[in-house]
Amino acid sequence: MVLASALQWIIPIAGLTAVIFAGYLARDVLRRDTGTDAMRDVASTIYEGAVAFIRRQYTTIAILALAGAVVIGGVIYLVETRDVADVPDLAGAPIAIMTAVAFLVGAACSMASGIIGMYISVKSNVRTAAAARRSLVEAVQVAMRGGAVSGFLVVALSLLGVWGIFTAYSTFIGGVGVREAPFLIVGFGFGASFVALFAQLGGGIYTKAADVGSDLVGKVEVGIPEDDPRNAAVIADLVGDNVGDCAGRGADLFESTAAENIGAMILGVGAFLIAQAAGWPNPEAWIFFPLVVRGFGLLATIVAIFFVRGREDEDPMNMLNRGYWVTTLLSVVGLLITTNVMMNTGTVVGANGIPAWIWFFLAGVVGLATSVAFVYITQYYTAGSWRPVKEIAEASRTGPATNIISGVAVGFETTAVTAITIGIALFASHWLGQQAQLVTPTGHDVGGIFGTAVATMGMLMTTAYILAMDTFGPITDNAGGIAQFSRSEESAREITDRLDAVGNTTKALTKGYAIASASLAAFLLFSAYIDKVNLIQTNRGGELLSSVNMADVSVFIAALIGAMLVYFFSSLAIRAVGTTASSIIVEVRRQFREMPGIMDYTQRPDYARVVDITTRAALRQMVLPGVVAVATPIAVGILLGHEAVAGLLMVGTIAGVLLATVLNNGGGAWDNAKKYIEAGHLLDADGKPIGKGTMAHAAAVVGDTVGDPFKDTAGPSLHVLVKLLATITLVLAPLFIR
Amino acid sequence: MVLASALQWIIPIAGLTAVIFAGYLARDVLRRDTGTDAMRDVASTIYEGAVAFIRRQYTTIAILALAGAVVIGGVIYLVETRDVADVPDLAGAPIAIMTAVAFLVGAACSMASGIIGMYISVKSNVRTAAAARRSLVEAVQVAMRGGAVSGFLVVALSLLGVWGIFTAYSTFIGGVGVREAPFLIVGFGFGASFVALFAQLGGGIYTKAADVGSDLVGKVEVGIPEDDPRNAAVIADLVGDNVGDCAGRGADLFESTAAENIGAMILGVGAFLIAQAAGWPNPEAWIFFPLVVRGFGLLATIVAIFFVRGREDEDPMNMLNRGYWVTTLLSVVGLLITTNVMMNTGTVVGANGIPAWIWFFLAGVVGLATSVAFVYITQYYTAGSWRPVKEIAEASRTGPATNIISGVAVGFETTAVTAITIGIALFASHWLGQQAQLVTPTGHDVGGIFGTAVATMGMLMTTAYILAMDTFGPITDNAGGIAQFSRSEESAREITDRLDAVGNTTKALTKGYAIASASLAAFLLFSAYIDKVNLIQTNRGGELLSSVNMADVSVFIAALIGAMLVYFFSSLAIRAVGTTASSIIVEVRRQFREMPGIMDYTQRPDYARVVDITTRAALRQMVLPGVVAVATPIAVGILLGHEAVAGLLMVGTIAGVLLATVLNNGGGAWDNAKKYIEAGHLLDADGKPIGKGTMAHAAAVVGDTVGDPFKDTAGPSLHVLVKLLATITLVLAPLFIR
Repeated sequence: MVLASALQWIIPIAGLTAVIFAGYLARDVLRRDTGTDAMRDVASTIYEGAVAFIRRQYTTIAILALAGAVVIGGVIYLVETRDVADVPDLAGAPIAIMTAVAFLVGAACSMASGIIGMYISVKSNVRTAAAARRSLVEAVQVAMRGGAVSGFLVVALSLLGVWGIFTAYSTFIGGVGVREAPFLIVGFGFGASFVALFAQLGGGIYTKAADVGSDLVGKVEVGIPEDDPRNAAVIADLVGDNVGDCAGRGADLFESTAAENIGAMILGVGAFLIAQAAGWPNPEAWIFFPLVVRGFGLLATIVAIFFVRGREDEDPMNMLNRGYWVTTLLSVVGLLITTNVMMNTGTVVGANGIPAWIWFFLAGVVGLATSVAFVYITQYYTAGSWRPVKEIAEASRTGPATNIISGVAVGFETTAVTAITIGIALFASHWLGQQAQLVTPTGHDVGGIFGTAVATMGMLMTTAYILAMDTFGPITDNAGGIAQFSRSEESAREITDRLDAVGNTTKALTKGYAIASASLAAFLLFSAYIDKVNLIQTNRGGELLSSVNMADVSVFIAALIGAMLVYFFSSLAIRAVGTTASSIIVEVRRQFREMPGIMDYTQRPDYARVVDITTRAALRQMVLPGVVAVATPIAVGILLGHEAVAGLLMVGTIAGVLLATVLNNGGGAWDNAKKYIEAGHLLDADGKPIGKGTMAHAAAVVGDTVGDPFKDTAGPSLHVLVKLLATITLVLAPLFIR
Repeated sequence: MVLASALQWIIPIAGLTAVIFAGYLARDVLRRDTGTDAMRDVASTIYEGAVAFIRRQYTTIAILALAGAVVIGGVIYLVETRDVADVPDLAGAPIAIMTAVAFLVGAACSMASGIIGMYISVKSNVRTAAAARRSLVEAVQVAMRGGAVSGFLVVALSLLGVWGIFTAYSTFIGGVGVREAPFLIVGFGFGASFVALFAQLGGGIYTKAADVGSDLVGKVEVGIPEDDPRNAAVIADLVGDNVGDCAGRGADLFESTAAENIGAMILGVGAFLIAQAAGWPNPEAWIFFPLVVRGFGLLATIVAIFFVRGREDEDPMNMLNRGYWVTTLLSVVGLLITTNVMMNTGTVVGANGIPAWIWFFLAGVVGLATSVAFVYITQYYTAGSWRPVKEIAEASRTGPATNIISGVAVGFETTAVTAITIGIALFASHWLGQQAQLVTPTGHDVGGIFGTAVATMGMLMTTAYILAMDTFGPITDNAGGIAQFSRSEESAREITDRLDAVGNTTKALTKGYAIASASLAAFLLFSAYIDKVNLIQTNRGGELLSSVNMADVSVFIAALIGAMLVYFFSSLAIRAVGTTASSIIVEVRRQFREMPGIMDYTQRPDYARVVDITTRAALRQMVLPGVVAVATPIAVGILLGHEAVAGLLMVGTIAGVLLATVLNNGGGAWDNAKKYIEAGHLLDADGKPIGKGTMAHAAAVVGDTVGDPFKDTAGPSLHVLVKLLATITLVLAPLFIR
């Protein structure tokens, strides 16, 4: 059908429109007022620190990625021999080069979106602080538009990157059509995972080491307030917000969208074959479908940005929520159009005489609904208005020990509703997909799995908006820091404080969203792995992998190792924060000792030196967990084989998703329990508020500090780890087959 | 062969000898000196509290078990119809009654061993305290012999119980031979699990609520030392040591030995069929083998008890280790005899011409070696001489937050060596078993799985000794409390302090051992479940379960729920401690307020009331986690089917073992980091010890308190949960088959 082909044009159009729109937003933000000299001064110090870190971090990552590309190319060259290659005619060097190129393009797109997004983010902070001197609504808009630059770039570059390399390979490489190309571009996803792993680890270690180090030496040892200019680590702390939440999460979601998109295309091949055999119109639409859906998601988000407005006295969260709902509703419309046009099954209908496309549309809606559910679940567990945070605040009355115990209990508890929601979403989307009755000539049902793929794609439609809200977090956090640092007007500081609180919520939401998408996607990535293994086995005439049998001793051992990896990796990440924080503490102590003028403001602390020390320490510390994450699945795959490594992947994913939930939500709840007490909501026996400076508050600060590396280093790094396991096994599958 | 039949007599002989020997030890302990009046006074208060708790707890458990037996009988009656029953002729009422009876016998044996062991344990504490006034060696012997009563009773009653019900069913029930009986006695394991779940939960909640509550109100609020007689909660705390570590762990290991024994017998049926078909001598020896091995283990332990002696200036841990090594070495000899005599494969030999029995003997040695490995791994992670505990102590310098972060990092890290050791043990024992080349006529290899069963049995040979060391813990802990409470001589208190430190180590070791046995056994219990399902499917002509396919959406969802259950259950257990501790705090505060004479020793606090309140609260709080643990696998099995529930079982086991490792070892490390600082090993910048009363010590106390519910409530309850999942699915398998 002509319409379905025409709809494919939405991919480059939406991608380019989003890039142009990001340029427009960037220009809009950059031309705004930058406030007082004092504000500009702090802002430029933060800017320099962030640029210095990003430059050094991305140089390191680029070197690692180049080395990675060479190693992967070499491995593929050796193992993708003629009898196992996806496309036998391309065995050896051609496939090795194509995989390495895809890996590098994926890595480069991820890095580019991270760098540009960061650049705008650290330019938006001071403009948000300046806007806060005039208007709440304007401040929200500046922060949200600055954040949206990052959001649009990440999603658009991921979309254009996947589409571009797919189109290039399927058009220009002989013997490669739309059927083969999805298997040949998995390197793109692996490149994105690889960058995301180090971006998130490095950024996560940096941000929390600076936060913990600055608090311990400033608040605890010397007794000066948070964000006090006399603390030499405070700029590093403000830099950290950007490199962790903006660049780190950006790379995380870049990877999600890329890897899941490719996984969905691989599953689309199954539907393509059925469509082709049955003579349905436009069979390749089944493969292009994920890209088109994401294009609609981008367009929906562009419209939604204009809905972020409101009254001066309105809760800023409402303004952001309004935009989120607009994105979601427009996405439903986009999904309806796409499924209707692209999933044409000719005269064949699904269960109960209902056309297949309606079943898949409903599966997509399940994905969007899951995303909404996670937004609210995260709020319930991490915002101060509900039971969990109140429970932790109450437990702080009896000291830090009960605060910690209570926070751990809450963190563990959050896995229940998370797992049940994921379970229902998986079951429902799989069931809806089955009703479409997409059965291969050999009687193999591919509809169920494809249903989960559609659900995942539905969920990913709102990624750009979610990411904009996420980057809103560090921008407003920085704006608050700048206002405090430059001793801005009280009214402006009040506004930045309100925005900062909203930013905390949006950062938490994004993590919930990232986890939900990782879990929903996990299942489709497993299936893509099994498809890939079976493609190889078909080529070489080996035994097909029909099941991943947990009752097999090798699979069980691999699964045990997968679940362990999640803990061990987190342990390394958490310890890295401690080690890096120690270097910061030593340096700040030295400055206080050797520069006595700091305390009476006559001497300016050497902020740059702390930034530099933190940068070097964080980058050094990210290597070990990164290597463990990459090496473990490879070692297990080589030792125990391709079925066992699937067990590692699946159980590692389950364990990773749950531990990330515990760490993210536990950390978020501790943070907000502290804020709950600071806001005066905890009352003593006489009904008077227990605020700052009390024993309960001190206990809550301990919980908050413990939660920092949980929720901002280990937790988010686990999202990336989980997806890395999927892409690494997909790319290196030929290495694991006996 | 006559010898193999004769060897079966070792089962009742060893069982009865152990019971008689336990009686001898009990008499030996009871006739000893009970010290001063003051000591007897405290001891009798502890005794009364413990008896009150145990009476009420076991009454509750007995009622729950009776209800459980009725429900299980009812379910089996309804679902074990003629076409699915293990023995079709017994379908319906007979099988329902047999299962319910087995369940009740298992529950009764577990309860009896718990109650008698506890009784001797609370009689041994004062005698240990009295012996400490004269001699270290004597004190060690009293505590160890008191503990051994519990160890011998638990293992002997489990052995005699399984043997008795097996013999009864296979002898007196028509149509039931040794081949069918193992499947009919799984109810025994389930009964033991059921009791263990509530014994461990109730005891664990009691002990830590009393500990945390008493510390918070005494040390933190009023500022009086630990075990101070003015603290009304202090007796509850001393009672708690007994009900948690002695009764709880006893029930835990009773269950391990029973369930794993039955699982091994079920696997033995496979070997029995091969032996019968091949005409090897004495085929039923393959089924009796686990019982015989355990008999030898008991005899080895009896000998070893006499090796617990030494010089007055010797490290008490050495004396205990000596006995442990004697048990282990004698067990190797017992294993050699048993495998040689019972695993006669006639003229058939295994790989490389080596007889099958040698391969199985080596698999058993792997089990014993795993047990030794875990003893040392646990020591490395939880004793003060190595890096992990030192790291936590160092982190305490910068306050409670860094102490907690460091402890979590250590706890997470411990999963690595744990998982790798289990992986190696499973792989090695499975591989060794395969070399025996035990293949069914249909080409199905049963040797590999049987190898893991032999390894598990090898490991369980030392259970009685390990359990004696474990109960040594609460006895010496109590002895220390009694010495402090009765203001005993300094020299005696020094000895009880040394013993208390050793007791902490032995308690930690037992948990490591319990985890290792649970994981090694997990695999054999899965296989038993699959055998059971396939027995049913064969009877009804259904499709055999050849794999548990993680790539199936229902299996994956069930696996996700299994991993989640582990966190959610722990969350409930941890929260239960907090809730119960709050009731204690309220009561002690009331007593301080309303009985002003307490502080100057003119008024005696109402200890009994606190004990009573703790008892009632702990028993109320154990119900919810218990119900969740039992209901979740049943609900998932009914909703998602028999293959999915196997996924829940396997991934739940992996998740449970790892989380228990984190909680146990993290908690143990925190505890000993505090002790490390108290012992003066942490030095300040001038090389002087930082001891009690410093900020670092206060931080370490926070870590210790956080670790309490982790290591003594949630962690040990997870051991039980993991095994409960296995027994519940085994018993209710017919309910889950579609």
